[in-house]
Amino acid sequence: MNLPGAQPARQQNPGGSGPSGRSLDPHLGRYARRAEGMRASEVRALFAVASRPEVVSLAGGMPNLAALPLDALAEDVARLVAAEGQTVLQYGSAQGLPTLREQICEVMALEGISAHPDDVVVTVGSQMALDMVTRVFCDPGDVVLAEAPSYVGALSTFSAYQAEVVHVEMDDHGLVPEALRQALGALAARGRRVKFLYTIPNFHNPAGVTLAVARRSEVLEICAEHGVLVVEDNPYGLLGFSDQTYPALRSVEQDNVVYLGSFSKTFASGLRVGWALAPHAVREKLVLAAESATLCPPAFTQAVVSRFLSRYDWRGQVKQFRAAYRERRDAMLSALDQHLPAGCRWTRPEGGFYVWLTVPEGVDTKAMLPRAVTQRVAYVPGTAFYADGLGSRQMRLSYCYPTPERIREGVRRLASVLEGELELLDTFGARGSEQRPGLTGPHSPSPDTA
Amino acid sequence: MNLPGAQPARQQNPGGSGPSGRSLDPHLGRYARRAEGMRASEVRALFAVASRPEVVSLAGGMPNLAALPLDALAEDVARLVAAEGQTVLQYGSAQGLPTLREQICEVMALEGISAHPDDVVVTVGSQMALDMVTRVFCDPGDVVLAEAPSYVGALSTFSAYQAEVVHVEMDDHGLVPEALRQALGALAARGRRVKFLYTIPNFHNPAGVTLAVARRSEVLEICAEHGVLVVEDNPYGLLGFSDQTYPALRSVEQDNVVYLGSFSKTFASGLRVGWALAPHAVREKLVLAAESATLCPPAFTQAVVSRFLSRYDWRGQVKQFRAAYRERRDAMLSALDQHLPAGCRWTRPEGGFYVWLTVPEGVDTKAMLPRAVTQRVAYVPGTAFYADGLGSRQMRLSYCYPTPERIREGVRRLASVLEGELELLDTFGARGSEQRPGLTGPHSPSPDTA
Repeated sequence: MNLPGAQPARQQNPGGSGPSGRSLDPHLGRYARRAEGMRASEVRALFAVASRPEVVSLAGGMPNLAALPLDALAEDVARLVAAEGQTVLQYGSAQGLPTLREQICEVMALEGISAHPDDVVVTVGSQMALDMVTRVFCDPGDVVLAEAPSYVGALSTFSAYQAEVVHVEMDDHGLVPEALRQALGALAARGRRVKFLYTIPNFHNPAGVTLAVARRSEVLEICAEHGVLVVEDNPYGLLGFSDQTYPALRSVEQDNVVYLGSFSKTFASGLRVGWALAPHAVREKLVLAAESATLCPPAFTQAVVSRFLSRYDWRGQVKQFRAAYRERRDAMLSALDQHLPAGCRWTRPEGGFYVWLTVPEGVDTKAMLPRAVTQRVAYVPGTAFYADGLGSRQMRLSYCYPTPERIREGVRRLASVLEGELELLDTFGARGSEQRPGLTGPHSPSPDTA
Repeated sequence: MNLPGAQPARQQNPGGSGPSGRSLDPHLGRYARRAEGMRASEVRALFAVASRPEVVSLAGGMPNLAALPLDALAEDVARLVAAEGQTVLQYGSAQGLPTLREQICEVMALEGISAHPDDVVVTVGSQMALDMVTRVFCDPGDVVLAEAPSYVGALSTFSAYQAEVVHVEMDDHGLVPEALRQALGALAARGRRVKFLYTIPNFHNPAGVTLAVARRSEVLEICAEHGVLVVEDNPYGLLGFSDQTYPALRSVEQDNVVYLGSFSKTFASGLRVGWALAPHAVREKLVLAAESATLCPPAFTQAVVSRFLSRYDWRGQVKQFRAAYRERRDAMLSALDQHLPAGCRWTRPEGGFYVWLTVPEGVDTKAMLPRAVTQRVAYVPGTAFYADGLGSRQMRLSYCYPTPERIREGVRRLASVLEGELELLDTFGARGSEQRPGLTGPHSPSPDTA
């Protein structure tokens, strides 16, 4: 997942957005309506806590960069500055460096995409690509469909543009086509305007599932029938543990898909280089939107990525990342199998960074979090990934950053916290009674209890 | 000025935004209303033309980086990657690196600003800071006040948020306080909601004038009286040719000013590192807005700027830039004095990058541009800097990038183009008759004919 690192302590204070802060903010009556939805997320507050070294953080989505060849990179970046400093330290094109856009087409070809560099727009991470797509398409009140659960950063972008998110059910094979069809039908019946389906087909964040290949054409057809654009977010596509890559939705359908890609997980997140691939007319709008947003992405970071792609065995590098994440995924799954109390269910990701865990009825993952942190383990409560309040019985566990040993220790601690919760619930009889039906996340992926 | 570099030729084609493109765009009915205002600007199309080596471009706002110590920078960036790669290639805080925010406070202190690093938000160039401020404050239909003329990139951001720009008159001493008072009174009488005054007090882009020190408190007081925020954009403040720095508006008034700064002109534009300094509650909103826009600014480029500030004599570097730009300004002014036909008037900047030229009645700078480019000189027509169609008798000339010799050659060519236009007008009697009153830019700064 794309989440910023720890914030200084003062920033965790809700400040202007809390009840007391509100009354102290002299600018309160001046904000745009969209600013009302801008509140510090649960995830954000968590990072400050989880960044303490004694806490095992299974919360963050930071890629593990240990495998990067830093010394070689250092030399190469130095050559870049010395030889091309006048260019790479200067303003560049709003659409991005032409050479990099060609290389991006080669990267996308690995997932079956045939594209022209003219239709690629380089952005400041794929988060900015998502922001630009929403800017170009969404008026306040428009509907965006997203999987249930969905990427927290996307929900926050949609909220910034006052779009309404309607979640669509997933199961272990990803988005459920029939649920998509029903949602679109129901929205049409209510006269609602749906602008696009936002989907993460591969190694989903946070659900850890992958859209079955057989479903891909169906999802595209349903959207085309309803005149709804597909926004395919694919930051993890090359990080499959079986070395298998799935055909991108964009490889099946060109005219109705905007594809978002990123180098944050396959190279370095701190460079903030992502992109959008869009049908020609949409690409034109995206470039104009990007120009008014940042003028142009940094030429320097683009040049660093471009050199990495042209001078390194980047496919080999991605393979190394895959092996490292696979080892961590294995550590997490075996620790979950070994330690978690009965009644817990979780997904078994074939790639990417995340496991989606459903805990027994009666346990509220958000309420439990402070106790977990006290026992030195952190996670992201499921509610962060829903726009509609669901997810209180779920949590996202990430295995991307800690070592396998730390992951095992983290899961042990989590299991002990859960045992404590269940014991309390049994003692005070709250279990199975306080929880209203539906709150446990009926739209969450079905568990893999194997 | 902040403008991206040359675009590939295909991009100049209006594509989806032209009449023929519209009918070919299957997504046409899907765009947000704000996308209607997203059109390729005159300036954008110019860059493709003006980037040909035989053309002297007085159009671009690219800083001159020749003075940068590239070899030393290269070594230093290499040390950064080798020693701190695991940090600087990783996600960072949405607000920006704490060390850099401290250093930014030191930079701002040069203009009399006393600020806390907690109130600084690092952005992807100050363009993104402007985008975030507009996002936080402007609903569609809200009014933003801006000088006449104003920075083209700001006009495009305001348009992206469907804010209405009302221009306020300037003269040789910058924004005219009485005109500001009148504009606010007239808007209040019409029941219009004004969100902020956007102003570039120092070495204005494009007008080349500076707000008189005596006017600064008055402008602040007028805005405070009317409950209107001040957004102070100051990319050129340290580039005054007399070594004088002016007191920032933010140094006079803290609670009602959002200050925007940039390293694009004092270090390197290709790193895209800018910032906003805002009252605490506003800063909180800006961070949340930025998080949904890009997650975080690139840690890598921030670290490069931070090292530059801590390890180099950056004040000496700024001094070198100032000397280089002063030499170019002198070359342009003396060439204008020497070559331009009677009836032309222009501003005499005391810093920054730009001269604002008013040509004799009857000449339309936008219509003349193709003929100028044919004669191998380019500029930006004045209309680009107005939201209301004014500026047809004005143009912006920039002296930041070409050598003094090229500047002189460019002005000679421009003079010859203008002579040709005037000759035609005299021959066919169009002069002084086709031009309706008002179109020549009544709100533009008054000329300095000395």
